Formats: sequence, C-alpha cells, structure tokens
Amino acid sequence: MVFGPLVEELWAGWWWSGIEHAAGRVIFSGIQPTGILHLGNYLGAISNWVKLQNEALPNDEILFTIVGWHALTLPQNPQQLSASRRDMLATLLAFGIDPKRSVVFYQEDNLCHVELSWILSCITPLGQLRRMTTWKSRLAAKRNANDESEVDESMLNAGLFTYPVLQAADILAYKATHVPVGEDQTQHVELTRDIADAFNRTFDPEKKFFPLPDVLITPNRRVRSLKDPSSKMSKSSPDSSSRIMLTDTFSQIDKKIRGAVTDSIQGITYDPVNRPGTSNLLSILSACEGVDVEEVARRYEGKGHGALKKDASEALEGLLKVPRAEFERLRLDQTYLNAVAKEGAAKAKERSQTTMERVRTMIGLY
Amino acid sequence: MVFGPLVEELWAGWWWSGIEHAAGRVIFSGIQPTGILHLGNYLGAISNWVKLQNEALPNDEILFTIVGWHALTLPQNPQQLSASRRDMLATLLAFGIDPKRSVVFYQEDNLCHVELSWILSCITPLGQLRRMTTWKSRLAAKRNANDESEVDESMLNAGLFTYPVLQAADILAYKATHVPVGEDQTQHVELTRDIADAFNRTFDPEKKFFPLPDVLITPNRRVRSLKDPSSKMSKSSPDSSSRIMLTDTFSQIDKKIRGAVTDSIQGITYDPVNRPGTSNLLSILSACEGVDVEEVARRYEGKGHGALKKDASEALEGLLKVPRAEFERLRLDQTYLNAVAKEGAAKAKERSQTTMERVRTMIGLY
Repeated sequence: MVFGPLVEELWAGWWWSGIEHAAGRVIFSGIQPTGILHLGNYLGAISNWVKLQNEALPNDEILFTIVGWHALTLPQNPQQLSASRRDMLATLLAFGIDPKRSVVFYQEDNLCHVELSWILSCITPLGQLRRMTTWKSRLAAKRNANDESEVDESMLNAGLFTYPVLQAADILAYKATHVPVGEDQTQHVELTRDIADAFNRTFDPEKKFFPLPDVLITPNRRVRSLKDPSSKMSKSSPDSSSRIMLTDTFSQIDKKIRGAVTDSIQGITYDPVNRPGTSNLLSILSACEGVDVEEVARRYEGKGHGALKKDASEALEGLLKVPRAEFERLRLDQTYLNAVAKEGAAKAKERSQTTMERVRTMIGLY
Repeated sequence: MVFGPLVEELWAGWWWSGIEHAAGRVIFSGIQPTGILHLGNYLGAISNWVKLQNEALPNDEILFTIVGWHALTLPQNPQQLSASRRDMLATLLAFGIDPKRSVVFYQEDNLCHVELSWILSCITPLGQLRRMTTWKSRLAAKRNANDESEVDESMLNAGLFTYPVLQAADILAYKATHVPVGEDQTQHVELTRDIADAFNRTFDPEKKFFPLPDVLITPNRRVRSLKDPSSKMSKSSPDSSSRIMLTDTFSQIDKKIRGAVTDSIQGITYDPVNRPGTSNLLSILSACEGVDVEEVARRYEGKGHGALKKDASEALEGLLKVPRAEFERLRLDQTYLNAVAKEGAAKAKERSQTTMERVRTMIGLY
C-alpha cells in the first residue's frame, strides 16, 4: 500500500544500510490505510519498520505516516476508510512502533504535503510521470485488462497519475535522507530524487536544499498464499483461508496452516521453485523465529508436514498473541489513538515548518 | 491572468447578471500576481470587480484572490513574483476593492485550496483535463510553435496540466455560486461544474453539497494596442508605448496617446473594423467617462484626431490620478498591505473551514 497504490500496497520493508550518518538520518515511510493487515504486509513492511526504529541511532529521525490522501486515488468507502486509518494506527502501535521514538501521523493532518506537492508539480514534466509504471498496472488491474496497452489513460483520474509527486512531497517536506520502500516503489524514489534535483537547480543557488533520498533496500521475504503458493499472500484473494490476518485467533491460524497447500514429497526441504508450499511454511516459521530458513529446514529433515505445520502455527501464535491483544485494546481506546495522532501531527508540522517557510521564500510566494 | 494562465491573463470582467438571490450570491474570482497592470487589464477585470462589489446586495459574499500557486505553472523570477503579488494587492486596493466589503487574500495563505485540489484530482479523469485548450495554447506560445499539434505534451509540467483542478478547488472551497471570468476561462468554470457534480454524486447522498457555479458574463470591452490596433493591448508587446500602464504619469499618458496610431480619414467616426485606431481611442474615452461609445463619437463628428487625443489623455488622467497616487502610497506601506492580507486570509480560512470539515468527513478522512 502506501504511496504506491500498487499490488502489495506497502512501502514494503527496507533494510538498514548499516552506514552511520554523523548528522543523523531522516528516515521516512508511509503506508496506506487499508485496515487489518495480513502476515505478508507485516513481514514485508511493519516488522522492518519496527526493527529500523529499534536499531536506529539516537540522532536518527524517524517518521511514519498513514497516507489517506494516497488512498483516495482509488475508490473508497468513506466510512470504511475512516475505520481503516484508525485500525492502521492501532496496528502500527500494537506491533511495536513507539510514538516516543518515531513520529507517527496521518498524512492528511499536515497540509504541507499537498502544498509542496502542488509546488513540485510545477517543475515535474508530464513525460516523467507517464514513465512511471505503477499507475498503468494499477489501472490495468482495475479494468481487468490483459495488458497495459489495453488501458485507456483518459479514464485514469488525475490523482492516480500525479500521486508520485505527492509521494515526493511527503518525503521532501521532511528532507528525508532514507526511504524504506518495496521494489515496486523504487522508481518513485528515483523520481523524488529527480524532482529534488530539479528544485535545487531551479531555486537554490547552492543547489543542495533538498537532500536526494536513498532507498533502503528491502529484504526479499515474500510470504506466499497458503492456498496457491505460486502467488503472493494477498488481501484481495477471494479465499480468506489463503492468508493469515494479524487479528486471527490461534484456532483460526491453526486451521489455516493445517489447510495450507504443500506437496506429497516425503520429508521437508527448502526448495521454493519445486516445493513452494512447503518452502512457504518454512519461510513463515523462519521469519517468526528470526532464524535463517535453511537452518530451520535442517531441523525438519526427517520430519513430516504435520510437525512443520504444528510448529508454524505455534510460532505464529507466539508472534501475534501479544500484539493482537494490544491491537484489540487500542482499538477500543480511540481517545488514546486520537491523542497519539494529534501529537504526531504536531511533531510532523513542526518538523516540516522550517523547510516549507524556506520553500515559500525560494519560489517567491512570500 | 488568474487561474487561466492564458493570453489576457485575467479572469477578465464579469457582469452582474441582475438576478437577485434570496440567500445571497457567493462571488469568487482570482487574478495572477503579474505586477503592474495596463489599462486593458483594468478595464477588462478590475473595474468590473469594483463595480460588482459596489453594486452587490448586502447578503452577497465577495472574495477576490491573488493566485500565486497558479503563477508557478510558468517559470517565474522569485523576487519579482514576490514583488508582483504585493503590487497586485496594492493595485486592487488603490482601484477600489474595499477589504471591508470584499474578502481579499493571497491564495497561498489558505492551504485548503491545495488540499481540496488534491481531493478533486482523485475524481477528475485525465481525459477531461486533456480537453482543456488553454494549456495547449499556452504551451504552444511558450515553444513558439505554429500549431498546437506541434506541442510536445510530455514537456508540459504537471501543474500547468492540472491547474484547472486547482481552479475548481479555489471556487468550490467557498461554495461560490458566481464566477466572473473572461471568455477564455469559461471552459474551466464548466469543468468546475463537472467536478462539483462528480463530487456530489460520489460523496453526497443528497447530491447537492457543492453548488454548480455560474459564469458571470464579461462585457466585451477590449482595449487595443496604441501602436497596432489590430491586436489587444498587451503586457508582452516589446513596444512599451503601445500600452498605458496604471502607474503612468500624465506626461507619459499624453505622450503615448499623442503617438497612438490612428488613420488619415477626415473627421471622427466609430468604426472598429475600418478605423481600429480611432475607434480604440473612442472606446478608451467612453470607458473613462462611463458613456456609450456611439454617443462619445457623435461629440467628435466635426473634430479631428488632435481634439480626441487631448480629451482621451485628460480622461485617462482623470481616471488614474487618484488611484495612481493611492497605489504609490500603499506600495510604501507594506505594513498595511500585510495587515490587509492577514485579515483577508483569516476571513478566507474561516469561510472555507466548515466546507472543508464536511468534505473530510464525506470522503472518509476523519
């Protein structure tokens, strides 16, 4: 989700580059308010955010935003969208984002994003936006087209076409230096760099006002569908037993894992190409335990699928039990969620204020 | 100007439709910060705004904005842009816009415009924007292309392409009912109606949240170049003696009028086709006096161009003398200008606040 209203719909995980920055990094990422997440979303993005936050240096600044304005680029049920943004905030907090350490806020609470987006749109050629592939694939999916060339661009809404500019504004409003995104979003960070560079060359005599942000590389930890391991675990699959939701109870988890498609080969080996179902269970277990998947596989060499599934279910329960309860608790405490959002918005505004004042002066609107 | 970064660069004059609205009209227009105006700009837009303001009913609401964000769609010198927006405010005040009667503000002081613009861009198909002709002609002019078909759309910046959406947001943020614009901008008000209707159908069960604004029709009072009366008086003409600037002194006015191209036909008649130069001087005199041009022409039947030019110069001086001095005075009083802008911004924000709160709820971002 986030930013890229693309398939996985997540600025999926980044990975800490390990480079220390004397001045401190400014790490920024966003996620779309899609409501309850599944395991793939968690392992692909939020678990990485939490790791990033917990391993950050004291002078790193970290901002995570829930991007409601990006969500509008596709049709939404307003009441559901409203509930989803609160659920997303509760999820982030329940799974370990600490508002004392990270600035967590709703994008739409800081109007600087849309202001800067307009300004940046005035130095971004249409041709550059047309080269972005995400809107095409998104539109193709929406229209059930077989090919992107079948897509009638004129039906596309202007927001879906220009959202990479809003994404650039999201990032640049905080002068972010590092942006954890999934592979499908790297071209948007590239565009952000181009736009930042265009702004610097146009308006800044020193040509370095906006830092050119770097992508934080994602660990490739894709979780597959439990029913069709040739495809990714997905929210949109009609078969709800194909995915583990973060709110699933142990009995739901256990039932879904026991029903997961594997194969009839004797013994357990990690072989994603020939044994995708079995390998997916090993991957899930490995992710839950934080242990290398090959090492996990070796433990099951002489065992069967039953043992692997039992352990995977229990490991998932171990991972989800506490956050799940915390999520349910937070969900009932809208007062607290509102307070967190308000404080996050205040910090985000404060963080972007100086930058925006300088921008307004540089472009002549003062 | 305004909105339409098009040829005349003005949401040129409207004309009061004469219809009384029980609930009061909400009249909204904008003008780009292009600095000092010429006589054509004044008679085409500002004089009409002043007339509208002075003839408005007590329950009419009137808002005039100086649209800096629209100005960014073309390259600007930032320092000059900053000066131009202050000069534009001073001009409006000097020529009769009364901040006690009209809300006068800088667009960029109310972030609701860009917020609503983003929201509306998510329900506006690209195809609808592509049908707008202004960006094509604008781009053709910029590229010195002979024809719009020569224009390479990919070089166009996204802001120039999407500014009709920002213009729709400008209008709808105040639920404006009447929009005075020049002919070249009527298609943008049509688009605003389409966007308002799309919003109402998508988000409002009663389908009437945004009123569909009407264009206020412009009186066709085009002022021609003093040197080439086949073309309009224009800021971009290289010959500065072709136009009367609102800051010209009497001796400058007199010199330019005496040097105005007329013809060698004996006597004075109003015949714009065959005697464009003579007719232009009659039009200017008629506009200054507020008297029908045919009636003015009859007064000069037996006279020569010298008499007409002398009277035109004096009438212009009569029109411009007091506002010119007021403009120069205001220009030196930046404290007052800032105070007017601040008060205008506060009123504009207050005026749009309820609408925006409702919009956020309707779309689900609450």
